[in-house]
Amino acid sequence: MTDLNTLGQVGLIDHIRQATPAPAHPETVRGIGDDAAVFDWGDSYGLLATELLVEGIHFDLTYVPLKHLGYKAVTFAVSDIAAMNGLPLQLTIGVGLSSRFPVEAVDELYEGIRAACTAYNVDLVGGDTTASRSGLILSVSVLGKVAKDKITYRHTAQPNDVVCVTGDLGAAYLGLQLLEREKQVFLADPNMQPNLSEERAYLVQRQLRPDARTDVVHELNDLGIRPTAMIDISTGLASELLHICRQSGTGAVLFDENLPIDDQTHLAADEFKISPVTAALNGGEDYELLFTVRPQEFDKLANNARITAIGYLTADPNQVVLATKAGQQTPIRAQGWGQSA
Amino acid sequence: MTDLNTLGQVGLIDHIRQATPAPAHPETVRGIGDDAAVFDWGDSYGLLATELLVEGIHFDLTYVPLKHLGYKAVTFAVSDIAAMNGLPLQLTIGVGLSSRFPVEAVDELYEGIRAACTAYNVDLVGGDTTASRSGLILSVSVLGKVAKDKITYRHTAQPNDVVCVTGDLGAAYLGLQLLEREKQVFLADPNMQPNLSEERAYLVQRQLRPDARTDVVHELNDLGIRPTAMIDISTGLASELLHICRQSGTGAVLFDENLPIDDQTHLAADEFKISPVTAALNGGEDYELLFTVRPQEFDKLANNARITAIGYLTADPNQVVLATKAGQQTPIRAQGWGQSA
Repeated sequence: MTDLNTLGQVGLIDHIRQATPAPAHPETVRGIGDDAAVFDWGDSYGLLATELLVEGIHFDLTYVPLKHLGYKAVTFAVSDIAAMNGLPLQLTIGVGLSSRFPVEAVDELYEGIRAACTAYNVDLVGGDTTASRSGLILSVSVLGKVAKDKITYRHTAQPNDVVCVTGDLGAAYLGLQLLEREKQVFLADPNMQPNLSEERAYLVQRQLRPDARTDVVHELNDLGIRPTAMIDISTGLASELLHICRQSGTGAVLFDENLPIDDQTHLAADEFKISPVTAALNGGEDYELLFTVRPQEFDKLANNARITAIGYLTADPNQVVLATKAGQQTPIRAQGWGQSA
Repeated sequence: MTDLNTLGQVGLIDHIRQATPAPAHPETVRGIGDDAAVFDWGDSYGLLATELLVEGIHFDLTYVPLKHLGYKAVTFAVSDIAAMNGLPLQLTIGVGLSSRFPVEAVDELYEGIRAACTAYNVDLVGGDTTASRSGLILSVSVLGKVAKDKITYRHTAQPNDVVCVTGDLGAAYLGLQLLEREKQVFLADPNMQPNLSEERAYLVQRQLRPDARTDVVHELNDLGIRPTAMIDISTGLASELLHICRQSGTGAVLFDENLPIDDQTHLAADEFKISPVTAALNGGEDYELLFTVRPQEFDKLANNARITAIGYLTADPNQVVLATKAGQQTPIRAQGWGQSA
């Protein structure tokens, strides 16, 4: 018997993909291995992404309000569609509920789901509601579409492409640390009031209610830019970059001083004695987009406040490194199986 | 706070549907309320169905081999596509795994998933693999399509339509009783050998590895028959018939002597002192199709070995009854929330 940890999550997906036969339907353009599956719908490509969220692994109901959880579950799946440079159309949601949840809790969950559907302009078209003996389970599937000449995969980046990231990184991870600390305080003394100051609001919001960057999909389209590769940052910048490099056969150099990190993230990182660069690289759950563009295209993005250039791709697939100002280079590594951020 | 049991599963889905805004995308033809959501794909309708399976609710790994479970999970979702008179194209599967599963167990599960994909001619195109603290979770989403003039809903049946069912009913439920009994024997004395004789093989197979009736979709198409309404039998004949009646605004009369029940089901029902009619009505998990046809169309099906006429629809929505040969009529009722078959 082989322990799942010997493969790791990426290894397990590779293992499954290798055993999966080639598609039988001519409409199936791409299966396992990207953020979403791709179908030929004639005028455009159809996209399908599925996410599974399990209580105790992906969320802790001690501090996650159900409304935010509903919103976040939709964000997870819509973010996968955005990573293909697509926009979402329809969504189904499966909910597994233990009997401890009253109808009001289901209403709160669905309030968040509906708010996200409105924000992302996606139709809630169905799903499945079932009992669960072991806490809350959410399964979200989103259908989307993208123009055929705009679709963006992971495996199509090239050496010298500029590596870009939207928004800022590491805040969701520090938000989680704050919430976990408050939980421990609360468990020790239930009469204690939470100590989440206004200044920390941004970090907590990034953890509890992240947004998928469909706005950037619109913006790239308006600017006439098609990234050479794109992926969303769910596990962490490091592992997502490694996906692009591995699938494109490239290396990469990132500059640590270029990583976009919010002031609040820096302050909280100091307090928790966590390196802000580590939080940005491996924290995960930022739901920003990591993408690459040809160097000659980058001018169009150079002054864009939402997008930061953080490095470039190289021809050597064995060189995926973080470079410091002092010229030191350290290899970028991904997290292992089961290490939830 | 309102207990979920006060709404029941059907009531909960109604409750969610009522709060769901109308679709914003013109491509969304139908959302919550049928076996699958329906989309306008130009030449045809697209279909999307999602099923969530949770260990301890939908399956018991004490006696369900993982390979069969993988096959069954695909059957659940493909059956929803068949119920819309459609055929499946692509499938994604999300798997939540606790660390007790070795790689070999994942392989066995996927072997069943792939076997079902081959049997139903559907492409496995992706999914999600995650940790789980609480047993195995499977979430399956299937995309399918159907010609626009062939699509079949639940709400379009009419009085006088003939009620038809494919295959036979109640066998999956008796198969479950046999497996549960053997489990108890085994738990009492792990050295006991299981007593599942050859004659019981059909019942056990119906429980462990049911088939979605995509063959009947092909056959109806070949015969030039479009049902007036259709649904798959997952919860049980009674609750599925009530869905069609409620959504179509009709009543129904079923004849108990017409219910297709296999000889093995009769024998096992005797042994367990269960009424075979109750097993057929409320046992569930048969994954047969329940459909209605106009009376003048029924001639084309009259001698079909796979299809049985079991009653007819009436104009009175308050009359959904089972009639005996002696002329007695009893109301048909569905199961409540959380009563898994």
